Amino acid sequence: MVSVGVIGYGYWGPNLVRNFQESGVARVTAVSDLSQGRLDLVRGRYPTIMTTPDHAALITRPDVDAVAIATPVGTHYDLALSALRAGKHVFVEKPLTQTAEQSRRLIDEAERRGLILMVDHTFIYTGAVRKIKALVDAGDLGEIYYYDSERVNLGLFQPDVNVIWDLAVHDLAIMGFIFTEQPVAVSATGIGHVPGKPANVAYLTLYFDRPMIAHINVNWLSPVKLRRTLIGGSRRMVVYDDLEPSEKIKIYDKGIELSNGKPRGESELERVYETLIGYRSGDMHAPKLDGTEALRREVLHFVDCIRQGARPESGGEAGLAVVTILEAATRSMDARGAPVELP
Amino acid sequence: MVSVGVIGYGYWGPNLVRNFQESGVARVTAVSDLSQGRLDLVRGRYPTIMTTPDHAALITRPDVDAVAIATPVGTHYDLALSALRAGKHVFVEKPLTQTAEQSRRLIDEAERRGLILMVDHTFIYTGAVRKIKALVDAGDLGEIYYYDSERVNLGLFQPDVNVIWDLAVHDLAIMGFIFTEQPVAVSATGIGHVPGKPANVAYLTLYFDRPMIAHINVNWLSPVKLRRTLIGGSRRMVVYDDLEPSEKIKIYDKGIELSNGKPRGESELERVYETLIGYRSGDMHAPKLDGTEALRREVLHFVDCIRQGARPESGGEAGLAVVTILEAATRSMDARGAPVELP
Amino acid sequence: MVSVGVIGYGYWGPNLVRNFQESGVARVTAVSDLSQGRLDLVRGRYPTIMTTPDHAALITRPDVDAVAIATPVGTHYDLALSALRAGKHVFVEKPLTQTAEQSRRLIDEAERRGLILMVDHTFIYTGAVRKIKALVDAGDLGEIYYYDSERVNLGLFQPDVNVIWDLAVHDLAIMGFIFTEQPVAVSATGIGHVPGKPANVAYLTLYFDRPMIAHINVNWLSPVKLRRTLIGGSRRMVVYDDLEPSEKIKIYDKGIELSNGKPRGESELERVYETLIGYRSGDMHAPKLDGTEALRREVLHFVDCIRQGARPESGGEAGLAVVTILEAATRSMDARGAPVELP
Amino acid sequence: MVSVGVIGYGYWGPNLVRNFQESGVARVTAVSDLSQGRLDLVRGRYPTIMTTPDHAALITRPDVDAVAIATPVGTHYDLALSALRAGKHVFVEKPLTQTAEQSRRLIDEAERRGLILMVDHTFIYTGAVRKIKALVDAGDLGEIYYYDSERVNLGLFQPDVNVIWDLAVHDLAIMGFIFTEQPVAVSATGIGHVPGKPANVAYLTLYFDRPMIAHINVNWLSPVKLRRTLIGGSRRMVVYDDLEPSEKIKIYDKGIELSNGKPRGESELERVYETLIGYRSGDMHAPKLDGTEALRREVLHFVDCIRQGARPESGGEAGLAVVTILEAATRSMDARGAPVELP
Repeated sequence: MVSVGVIGYGYWGPNLVRNFQESGVARVTAVSDLSQGRLDLVRGRYPTIMTTPDHAALITRPDVDAVAIATPVGTHYDLALSALRAGKHVFVEKPLTQTAEQSRRLIDEAERRGLILMVDHTFIYTGAVRKIKALVDAGDLGEIYYYDSERVNLGLFQPDVNVIWDLAVHDLAIMGFIFTEQPVAVSATGIGHVPGKPANVAYLTLYFDRPMIAHINVNWLSPVKLRRTLIGGSRRMVVYDDLEPSEKIKIYDKGIELSNGKPRGESELERVYETLIGYRSGDMHAPKLDGTEALRREVLHFVDCIRQGARPESGGEAGLAVVTILEAATRSMDARGAPVELP
Repeated sequence: MVSVGVIGYGYWGPNLVRNFQESGVARVTAVSDLSQGRLDLVRGRYPTIMTTPDHAALITRPDVDAVAIATPVGTHYDLALSALRAGKHVFVEKPLTQTAEQSRRLIDEAERRGLILMVDHTFIYTGAVRKIKALVDAGDLGEIYYYDSERVNLGLFQPDVNVIWDLAVHDLAIMGFIFTEQPVAVSATGIGHVPGKPANVAYLTLYFDRPMIAHINVNWLSPVKLRRTLIGGSRRMVVYDDLEPSEKIKIYDKGIELSNGKPRGESELERVYETLIGYRSGDMHAPKLDGTEALRREVLHFVDCIRQGARPESGGEAGLAVVTILEAATRSMDARGAPVELP
Repeated sequence: MVSVGVIGYGYWGPNLVRNFQESGVARVTAVSDLSQGRLDLVRGRYPTIMTTPDHAALITRPDVDAVAIATPVGTHYDLALSALRAGKHVFVEKPLTQTAEQSRRLIDEAERRGLILMVDHTFIYTGAVRKIKALVDAGDLGEIYYYDSERVNLGLFQPDVNVIWDLAVHDLAIMGFIFTEQPVAVSATGIGHVPGKPANVAYLTLYFDRPMIAHINVNWLSPVKLRRTLIGGSRRMVVYDDLEPSEKIKIYDKGIELSNGKPRGESELERVYETLIGYRSGDMHAPKLDGTEALRREVLHFVDCIRQGARPESGGEAGLAVVTILEAATRSMDARGAPVELP
Repeated sequence: MVSVGVIGYGYWGPNLVRNFQESGVARVTAVSDLSQGRLDLVRGRYPTIMTTPDHAALITRPDVDAVAIATPVGTHYDLALSALRAGKHVFVEKPLTQTAEQSRRLIDEAERRGLILMVDHTFIYTGAVRKIKALVDAGDLGEIYYYDSERVNLGLFQPDVNVIWDLAVHDLAIMGFIFTEQPVAVSATGIGHVPGKPANVAYLTLYFDRPMIAHINVNWLSPVKLRRTLIGGSRRMVVYDDLEPSEKIKIYDKGIELSNGKPRGESELERVYETLIGYRSGDMHAPKLDGTEALRREVLHFVDCIRQGARPESGGEAGLAVVTILEAATRSMDARGAPVELP
């Protein structure tokens, strides 16, 4: 049994506590939160868990092997660093930190101490995303042409980060997981409608070193909730709708077929009718997906990495890659979409 | 009866001929097309219409009052100019011309000769868009926060224009019609997947002089067809789905309520929980829409303008405004999303 | 070229005329209708077609090889009989006649004269239904457990037949086509809401000689339009939604697995937890369908049968089978769902 | 605080326990279940709740004020009777009992002892159904024409009751709540596909003393899950889709308008074109619904009735009315849909 201390029992913390408790391989020893009401809630549900308003006390408890951090992003770095320095393995909510520099320092600290540093890129542990990765890896989609995602809903406005840091982070994590190519530049645009608050509507485009593009549409001010990703490949195309109860992934045997053609006319008017592009439209297939709760799979993986000393699928480097793009996107957004090169 | 000559009987021409014929206020006298097969089709359907491969002959016929042009965009300027010079009223497929300069010249020519110049911005004549305009004009949506549109499908790749000129043009026409604000800058990104052909996936952001943003996602290489526009306002929000058979417009009484709040804590951790944003979620309403075919309403309007000497709702100036943005968007796309100011 | 005379140019007649004209193997020589306005419409669209208010004159024209009847069902028998007696092949709208006895007489007349008698069971010529038949024939669905169909919409109330004769007829035709089993009894219930008019809401259950059931829900007074059929089999299940633009058929690899089990408890309370039924949930598959217009395929088949002297897929016998069930269903409906045996 | 003992911790029991615990007005003192594994689960989640395999012991505990029964229907009567005789208020899962006679005895027993007997007709406590009742009560739908419901999914086959007792019971409870009319006869058809097990596909029609009909389609062997009810009225019509995340109820301003007309022709053929029915199609409206969990509202109501000695909205009489129809429907099903009169 790995003993876990959880910092933060707000929106996501309860899911962490429940999944660690029910994992069979870990148990939650202590939970800290600044709100007494939240701690009361913990005690009502889990009378055996120690609660404290003092996260520093939790971090230094000798009976805590690992610390899970589910607090606002502005606090991730300090809390994670303290935990690593106290010799604890660390599991951090996405995004890993506020700056790439902070992520790099955490990676170094964990490396130096031989501790596991893992970021909670939940989506890469879903049956849907793992299926997409399998399709990409097997070449079933062919060459990837584009990744186009839409994550919009009403709320929850966050006071300290813009909507890209809250929602686009999911797509960046998914892309880092399923694609081998790294983006080379990013262009982002966006706007805020609450004075003094960060952007709540934003659009982000990622460029690659070949004819592939990624685009992410995020919005906290939409009347409807949408979670829809299109992935276009030369062989097949995928529609991934996370709100579908059962058929989250649909694989379309559709695409274009290029062929050589000759201009069929002399005049300008006639030539424009010529086309060398044929359309292919075949079956659609919705594979059955593994329905295991993503966070359960993730928690088991975290414990496994601790035991084996293995590298997590969403380790510090994955977190750093995402934060690097988020930083660049914010710079581009400040310059109305002017492209920013990525390292 | 206004007598109309139609140039081009490809994809859209048949709709023009049918609507002019059934309008009750106009009749089609002649149709020209470079393809003999298309002309045979016209004669089979309408034995009384004269057909010719020679558009110049059609334009100069004395029994033709107005010329409707449904050919590739590269030919619009020359054909429209010839028709105006021959003293004919002109109805041109969208987009009006390939360059803003060409649009300006057509406007001048029509003005000088007292002729009607109208561009076929079909969507502004739909019951759906007219309802949205009525909502905006009445202040029912409040202050507009964003316009976010998605027009994706498989095909039809066009050889001479990129996907923005084919699909985003609809949204630019709609925005020009329903909003009084003009965009001040545009940022566009995109990519092509067929060597030597223009971009088939593109994203366009429009900036305004106040906290309002517009975004358009267009794609010829999508496995599914989507035509969905979100319009967010301070009072209400609209979802416009043109593929819905009956409820194309849904009006949501949803939004955010801003209120003054005080930081509830001393420490950084506690303050981040504070929020001054409330969410309002009320009824949804789908108004019954006028189901008249848009092109029928448009054709009647064109004839009306000819008779009254009135200014069309989609006259040359509207066409110019759209082409101006399209030109700027193409420049931004070439610069990976760097913003381009609009005049 | 088979020369066709069409009687009735109301709701469906225009589709018949268009498809015969564009078939390449037939042409429409004459159209009759009691309304002068409808005949004017024909002449406007097809100047070469002779029109007449006198169907008897049309039937006896020597230049007419076949007669297509698209009039209210109450007139089918007389018109078809006249046409057969005049030596014409006959194509009749569904349902074939008002009574089974009438259908039998038409079959005899056609048989005696060596003429083709075909009923317009349009749906069996759709790509969707033909795909379902192929699945059933190949055993892909396994043993059929049920057929459950819903056809509801607002209007069009018919004055002379109840909603079963208008809408359920489609399902009866489809079932006759895809299943080899014949129903042995029918139970129907329904109600009318317009005084003096036939039932506009009705439900029909068909029994078979093995554990299979069919159910049809038809309604002219629904706020929404639905066309949805579930077909449950022991190996796979199908959802057929005719309103889906592209994926009309979805094949689910789902079902139950029966296994032997032992009661696990002594008491009554414990035994009820025991179950021998397992659930299987696999992939979903939406095959690409042949998109040929059903009526085009049907018209070509009719001409083919005339030329080859072949038996139509929807010949008189198929029409008789459907009318036999409709008659029995109406009797059951009058007896509030009391079952009526089928011959 | 009302002290509650819960019998049965299978599928539904956990929801009862959670809602009583979080109600603020009741607490669960004891839980009994025949499975030791289920009791372990209770103790893991709620260390303070006493668990026992012996329901008789639970019933007689002096510190138990009320007993909630979430066991298979075959056991409801004996358990409820024991509890009432022990002086406890009783809350029973739907359906109340296996026979109307049993329900009557429970009602008498509760009456005699002045105890609350309530059946868990969960749906009548949802925001959606309460909104529909408000619309019906206010006359917004006009005269009710039909109620048409579909509840289909894959599983969970129940060994002791047919699918009507499991799923149609919801609709019977809803109808009893929202309509003032009582059905006068029922016709039901159905079939089972597992040898020795009750029907898993069934259809039920209810007749009323005026032109109103109700129909319920239930199926445990459907590849897709549907929960959809149409309610047609003379003024408005409602679509209630319980699987919609936010717009569960849509109110359509649609219907028919009857007017006097005269036959417009002499011949039989012409008269059939005549119609006296007009169609009205107006706006659609989706009201915001109260999102309180139904079971929470229900549990609060149960406690309230205990305290006030009030009559529950789903008391014994409501349970009896439902069971009476279920019994009659089962008889009709055995007679292939022959109608059975209701008392």
